[in-house]
Order: sequence, then structure tokens, then C-alpha cells
Amino acid sequence: MLSLPALLQALTSGELSPTEHVDDVLARLERDETNCVIELDAERARSRAAELTALSARGERAGPLHGVAVGIKDLIDVEGLPTRCGSRLLAGAAPAGADAPVVAMLRAAGAVVVGKLHTHEFAYGPVGDVAATGPARNPHDLSRVTGGSSSGSAAAVAAGHLALTVGTDTGASVRTPAALCGVAGLKPRRGALPGAGVFPLAESFDTVGLLAADAASLAVARAALGGPARSGAGGGPLRIGVARGDWWRPHDPVLGDAVDAAAAALAGLGHPVADQGTPGVAELAATYPVIVGAEAWATHREWFTTRRDEYQPATADRLAPHADGPAHTYVDARRARARLSAALPAQLDCDVLLCPTTRLRATPIGATEVAGAPVRPSMLETTSPFNLLDLPVVAVPVPVPGLPAGIQLAGVTVGEADLLELAGALANRL
Amino acid sequence: MLSLPALLQALTSGELSPTEHVDDVLARLERDETNCVIELDAERARSRAAELTALSARGERAGPLHGVAVGIKDLIDVEGLPTRCGSRLLAGAAPAGADAPVVAMLRAAGAVVVGKLHTHEFAYGPVGDVAATGPARNPHDLSRVTGGSSSGSAAAVAAGHLALTVGTDTGASVRTPAALCGVAGLKPRRGALPGAGVFPLAESFDTVGLLAADAASLAVARAALGGPARSGAGGGPLRIGVARGDWWRPHDPVLGDAVDAAAAALAGLGHPVADQGTPGVAELAATYPVIVGAEAWATHREWFTTRRDEYQPATADRLAPHADGPAHTYVDARRARARLSAALPAQLDCDVLLCPTTRLRATPIGATEVAGAPVRPSMLETTSPFNLLDLPVVAVPVPVPGLPAGIQLAGVTVGEADLLELAGALANRL
Repeated sequence: MLSLPALLQALTSGELSPTEHVDDVLARLERDETNCVIELDAERARSRAAELTALSARGERAGPLHGVAVGIKDLIDVEGLPTRCGSRLLAGAAPAGADAPVVAMLRAAGAVVVGKLHTHEFAYGPVGDVAATGPARNPHDLSRVTGGSSSGSAAAVAAGHLALTVGTDTGASVRTPAALCGVAGLKPRRGALPGAGVFPLAESFDTVGLLAADAASLAVARAALGGPARSGAGGGPLRIGVARGDWWRPHDPVLGDAVDAAAAALAGLGHPVADQGTPGVAELAATYPVIVGAEAWATHREWFTTRRDEYQPATADRLAPHADGPAHTYVDARRARARLSAALPAQLDCDVLLCPTTRLRATPIGATEVAGAPVRPSMLETTSPFNLLDLPVVAVPVPVPGLPAGIQLAGVTVGEADLLELAGALANRL
Repeated sequence: MLSLPALLQALTSGELSPTEHVDDVLARLERDETNCVIELDAERARSRAAELTALSARGERAGPLHGVAVGIKDLIDVEGLPTRCGSRLLAGAAPAGADAPVVAMLRAAGAVVVGKLHTHEFAYGPVGDVAATGPARNPHDLSRVTGGSSSGSAAAVAAGHLALTVGTDTGASVRTPAALCGVAGLKPRRGALPGAGVFPLAESFDTVGLLAADAASLAVARAALGGPARSGAGGGPLRIGVARGDWWRPHDPVLGDAVDAAAAALAGLGHPVADQGTPGVAELAATYPVIVGAEAWATHREWFTTRRDEYQPATADRLAPHADGPAHTYVDARRARARLSAALPAQLDCDVLLCPTTRLRATPIGATEVAGAPVRPSMLETTSPFNLLDLPVVAVPVPVPGLPAGIQLAGVTVGEADLLELAGALANRL
């Protein structure tokens, strides 16, 4: 994989020019086997790379991401390209008239947008196998899923094509594909990265996030996007709570081993580590599908009514149960979410909560159940609580034999910057 | 009416003791003709007044409202008294176990809670004529309504019983009764006064507010409750926008005269005054009944299903259309509200928006239409936009012949404290 700090070092030293880097990325993406590419913006990318190469030659830099190729989930507007959302409904969409603000920020920082990446249809699924262009394929085993919905954004990093991609996360969609593909993902709090110009899944939870090879790469990228400074905790010990209880128990025991290995490594770094209960988490998590379903249905109702057959069948099956659901169910779920998400953090006696990202590792494409466990909830139920709580989370891989395994570090009292530093130290220790 | 600054002067100078004041208030409330009283807490009030009188005798004060009798809308918890919400459903409610925070804040400031005041049933109406205990009656004409839903809170001030009362305002409920009864009302932004311990009407809009004889009284009360200081605009000129267009045209021409008189007075005070359009206000206001209806239905669904006949017929008729309304209608209304309430303020070229509080003055009890205009919307549609926009508003009377007429000063760029100062200067000028 491409480390962003290493790539920037090469671009800054002149060892690699923006043109060489972008040409290499485009060539890799053209022969990609993971189905991560929706559309390349090759001409514009090469033209911008040439401008940046000329700047480099004069000893200048356009910004902190000078010359770095980036890929954008095809749920996010890139000026001049259609936003297809993985759906046949938008196969003929007009090109976006403007960059989404997060894309504009990346360009302003010197990054080169090379194209649009695979998404689970309308971001409504944590598996990455449902899209107009077919399933995304996991670089670690092309017969397995990437996780979703930022499927292409994770696969492109894991395959070594790109050092940085942009995804979105409503309940899982940055972290689950990061975990299944063995890369790092950042889900900020809502609004920390601007959400305009992004096709909505559910406005209560939608966030924009980043994926990269590791936490150190995410830290560089986030800082380049005006990320918050560290809290001033001064690098001192953070109380690590290891999420325990039925809710957090993975179906795949290797994921339990990964959490234990991370806990041991964090303890080895001098952080106090203790088991942590999360009372009410199951009741809280139960509000997620109700809220998302109602909001997604409101968005899709017109299309669903008139063009249902253009949805992928799995997407249609997810939307249909929410058709004309009563408002009181949604209002009640919102109230329960407000009550429970206010109550739960007060019961946490830690600065950072450590837990598995998913309950299963990458499953075979097409499988709906693995070892008796249902696939979809296994990819969502350990991530969505942090959208409900609106906590920042860094999801990082832990080395294990075989398919990748990922853990989450959720900021209970600390923010993105501290989490990224902690995750970086953890990676070094592991 | 009782001016709060004058009352405090009398209490502070010793001219009037807390006991004398509270005895007088209780005597007035016992012989009240407006039906504003739900329940008196006479024994406790007298006991507290005696404590405060003893403090006064030692030259001490319990707080900035030392000895001031206050009345609480019966939608708000007062420890030891049931919260009946104007409904037969709660006629046998257990006494509240604790004061709502706003009540506790008043007590901490030295105020004496004398009892609970009339509310439109469950606060779901701007007229004040629907309650288990019958309609509240306007002190200016006992055959006419008070406006609602803080009906008793306005009537008690207008009748001269109390210098300060607490109400709530979801779409009209402090300002409309203030206007119809000829008193002053403050609707802060959401959360500026704590909303806990208050029976909800609609969580998207519920606020706690204050009613008093005039803006000067409100300013003293708000400061005693930890109100914000002035913005530092330094008492300089504020751009006054006079809301124009069909939406703001009263059915009663005297209310148009009141707005013009207020505009002229504000100009006379040196504030630049100009007509102000409010594009999109009708579309924005149309979202209000949808959002409130869905949230109110979610609250009342269980009771409505099992105990419908205990609601007043008018309340049942308002709830029934929202039974099992679809979630997408509510979600769509929330989205429209978010979009329009973000867009409208950007089109306002003023610091303060001036408009009528209602489109009709106090109507006869039982009337649903007056001079061809429907009563209920006439009491709501010019107030609810400021709940949708979440702007602070001060509603004050303007002297006119006959029944009272009220205008609103809504803070577009300024907050409560500046509005109260402006309203006080306006009252002096008028």
C-alpha cells in the first residue's frame, strides 16, 4: 500500500513528480481487478499533474497534498463527472456542476482527483456487493466482499492504487470496508468535514470520511483538510475501555484476538486499559435502521414508486419495508436515540473505547450467512452505535493471519487528532 | 398591571413585605374572574413569603426576585403539584416529584411560586378556549378569549394579579396570549431557558418563555434568570425591517395601525426603518403543522387510542388527522424547514423584524371565524415562523382604542437583551 507520508516525501524531494505519480495511479486503476473504478477523469488529472509538476520544478507547492492522487466515492460530486451512486437510476445523470466542498478542499490542498470509485448502491448497505456495476472485490481475495458502502475507496487503497480516498459513513461505510480490506478509516463527527454535494442516505447520520493505508496517512490528510489540532492532552496516558458484553462479541474469534492484541499493545504503550460495559447499546442500535429507513425512504419514494425495477433487487428489498411507515415510529426512534445517546456516554469510564469494527471478516460475495451469522448486521451493528452517539472513530487494521481484521478506537473524551495519534502509536507497537 | 421593577422597588424599600405581597396576590387569584387559576400552592407560598419577610427584616435578600410572586403554566412541573396540562387525562396526575429547572431557577432567585395557571389543553392551540376547566377569559372583555396556549399566564398578568408568569411557546403560545391580553411576552431561542420538566408539545420547537406587564419587567426577570447580556451593539441604531406582503397583513386593520405606529416610533428613536419582504415565509410556515402534528401524535398516540373520549373534542379533532401519518411527510417537512429556515434570514436586510403578533385581536369565546377570517390560523401563522427560524422574539402591546393589539420584534442579528431594550424604549416612546 501507499503510505501518504512516504508518497509526500517522494513528491517533495523530487524523487517522484506529480505527473509520474498520477500516470502510475491511472495505469494501475486501468488494470484494476477489484472493480473499484467507476470512472476516471484521466485527461483532467494529467493536465493538473502537469501544472503541479511545473510548480514543483520551480520549487513551489500548491498545498500540503501537492501532487497526491485521490479517488472520490461516487456518491460525492466531482465537477464535470456524473454522480451515479452505484445505481442504474443515475446511470445517465448529468455531470455535477460543481465540486462538493470536500473535493474542492482537496484540490485546494494540491491533490489531484483521478476519478470516481465504487459505492454500494445509494450507500444503503455495509457489504459493497450491490451496485449497477457489480460487486466490488476484496484485493486480499477477489472472491470476497470489500465491505461497504465506501467499497471502492477501501479497495483502491488496499490494492495499492491510491494513497488517499474519500468515503462517507452513515452507519459503517468508511469503517467496515476499511476493516475488511485492511486499511485505515476516519469517521469524524457530523459536519467536521462538509457534507454538501454528497447524495444523502440519512441526514441524521451522514458523515464524510477518509481512507488511507494507515493512521499516519490519515493524520497527514486530515491536517491538510484543516483538521483540528490535538486536544492538548499532551500525549499523556488515555484511559482505554475495551467494549465488553454480548453486543461487541465477534462471530469470528480472530476479531476477538485482534481486540485483545490491540488492548495489550495500548497497555504496553502506558495507557490504562480496562473492560468497559456499554449499557443500553442494543436498544440504542435498534433505533438506527428505523431512522435511516424513514429518511432513505423519503429520499427515494418518488423514484421507487415510478422506477422500482431500476433499483438493484437488494436495495429495493431494503427500501420497501419503509414504504409509508408511520411518522410516530420514526419520531419515537429519534426520541429513544436522543435519550439513549445522552445517557450512554455518561456511563463510560474511559477516554477511548476499543472494539472490533465488524463481527465477521470479509465474506464470500453473495453469502448472506456465514457460520450461522447473518452477514449484513455483522458488518453494521458494531459501527452504527458511534453514528448514533456522534463520536469520532478511527478504524485500523490489526495484523492477523489470513484475511484482515480491524478494530475501532472511538473518541469518548478525545477528538480526531488524538485518536489518529493513538492509532499511529498502536500500529507502530503492533 | 404590576410592573416588576416597581414591585421590586417596593419590596426592597420595605414599603411592601413579601408576606403582604403574596397575601395580596393570593387574595386576588382567589377572586379571579378570568379562570386563569388551576391550583394555588397557598400554604407553601405563605410559608416561603414568611421566610423571605424574615430575611428582609435582617436586611438580606434571597436573590434578585426576592419576594416576587410568580405563576407557572400548568404544563410545567412544580414539585408537589400535579401537572394537568389542561386535560381530563391528567386530572388525577400524581404530584410532580421535582421542580422543572426553570421553576427551580425562579425559586433560587427569590421568587415565590403561588400556583399553576390555565393552559390550552396540552398546549395544542393558540386560542386558550379548550381546557378541562373551561376557557380562559380575557380581562379586557370576559366574553373573549385570552389567546393560548399560555392563557392563564397572560390573563393573570393582564388582570393585575401577578407581575411575572412562566409560559411556553411552540408556535405562538407566549406571544399570542400576550398580544390578546395586552401584556409583554418573551420567546427566547430554543434552550435559552431550560425545557426539562415541561410536558412536550413538539420537541422541534418547544421553548419556555416569560410574560409580564411590559418589556422592562421582562428584562429584569430575564436577567434574574441568568439572561444574556446585551450584544454590545452599544445602544446604537438597529435596522428595523417592517414585514410586508400578504403573509403579514392582519385581518383587523387596527393591527396594521399598531405596526405602523411602532415603526414610526422606532424611526423617531433614530432607528432606520424600511419595508422588508420575507420570501418563502408561506412555504416555511406550511411545514409547521406537519412537524408539530407528527410529534404531538407520537406523544399522544397511546392515550388517544385508549382514552380518546377524555380529550376535549377540539383537541381530539386536531390530533386525529395525524394518526398514522406517513414518516416521509414528516421527513419532507423537516427537510423543507431546514432548507427554508437557512435561506430566509440570508434575504433579510435588517437587524430586527417588526410585524403584528396576530391577525385578529381577541375574538369571542366559541367563535371559529370572525369577519370571514378563521380564528385559529389568525392566532398562529404570524408567530410560528419565528419558531421555525428559531429567532428570539419580544411581543409587546401597542396602545390602540378598544381591545389590545400586539406587535413582535424578532431578533434577526440581535438577541433577547437587545430586543428587550429596544422594546422598552419603544414603549416609552409610544
